[in-house]
Amino acid sequence: MLMQPETVLSSHRIYAGRTISLRVDEVRTPSGIAAQHEIVEHRGAVALVAFDDEGRVVLIRQYRRAAGKTLIEIPAGTLEPGEDVTACAARELVEETGYSAAHLERLGGIYPSPGFCTEFIHFFIATGLTRGDARPEADEIIEVEAVPWDEALRRVRAGEIQDAKSISALLLVDARRRQA
Amino acid sequence: MLMQPETVLSSHRIYAGRTISLRVDEVRTPSGIAAQHEIVEHRGAVALVAFDDEGRVVLIRQYRRAAGKTLIEIPAGTLEPGEDVTACAARELVEETGYSAAHLERLGGIYPSPGFCTEFIHFFIATGLTRGDARPEADEIIEVEAVPWDEALRRVRAGEIQDAKSISALLLVDARRRQA
Repeated sequence: MLMQPETVLSSHRIYAGRTISLRVDEVRTPSGIAAQHEIVEHRGAVALVAFDDEGRVVLIRQYRRAAGKTLIEIPAGTLEPGEDVTACAARELVEETGYSAAHLERLGGIYPSPGFCTEFIHFFIATGLTRGDARPEADEIIEVEAVPWDEALRRVRAGEIQDAKSISALLLVDARRRQA
Repeated sequence: MLMQPETVLSSHRIYAGRTISLRVDEVRTPSGIAAQHEIVEHRGAVALVAFDDEGRVVLIRQYRRAAGKTLIEIPAGTLEPGEDVTACAARELVEETGYSAAHLERLGGIYPSPGFCTEFIHFFIATGLTRGDARPEADEIIEVEAVPWDEALRRVRAGEIQDAKSISALLLVDARRRQA
């Protein structure tokens, strides 16, 4: 069965911001029920599983105000308006970690919060890394570390990595490696 | 090195809604840079990897307005104010799928969007299922299916499942099973 989307009765802009915007849609379901949807609009993002020449994976630590703590994540960042996703992946990897990648390969992606947010995160595998200087945004404080692959997976399994994009991308790469 | 959180200079409420609220914090970083953080406030949620007695896993299909399409997901739902996470998991499983679970086991969880959203999703493994009638909310249209475990993993690897909580929880369960 194909599911009928709802009919949109009205759409109100609540906020237009730097990273996200907010609107509230009034909809009617196919069965005639009226409902309200709060929708966070987001341009989308990229995230990278980046391997250095020794097979270590690049992780970052960053204080996350929304989570109220420092999280271990893979490098990632938000698309600029109109930016190509691969160009964004290359740019964010350098900005956040200082590494340039000779090869970027697409690996699907995720909707982090499809219940209320439009964001889709495009995943990449980055290889052929060259180390340079990171150029984080002025308000970003990022610690970079390259860890052995088994240690990255251990951190996922142990719950030390709690960021959804990092868990998803690392375990997708792991699943692909075990199939190869 | 322990990373110093920023100092909050001001916090403005933009919107207080049903599922999410929005505030904008003005902060000063440890290095003295002023920055603005848009924070989506969310009470948190639960998601379940539910196995029936034949070892099949319960998946749902649901139109997601924010994603603009129908997604395949595991059962999940938002905490009511003050609700215990295990009680929420039991409630959401019945409401969305009609299944009651005799056993609910915690399995860590994720921050879906720690860059801007406070939400944490608590994962559970549900077993000892009894089939009853689903009681979705009036505006929810949910299709339920129980699929073999290998088929669920195939859908994750093939990119047919794009929801972050579902990919994370299914692959975490897979990682644990392979370790056992």
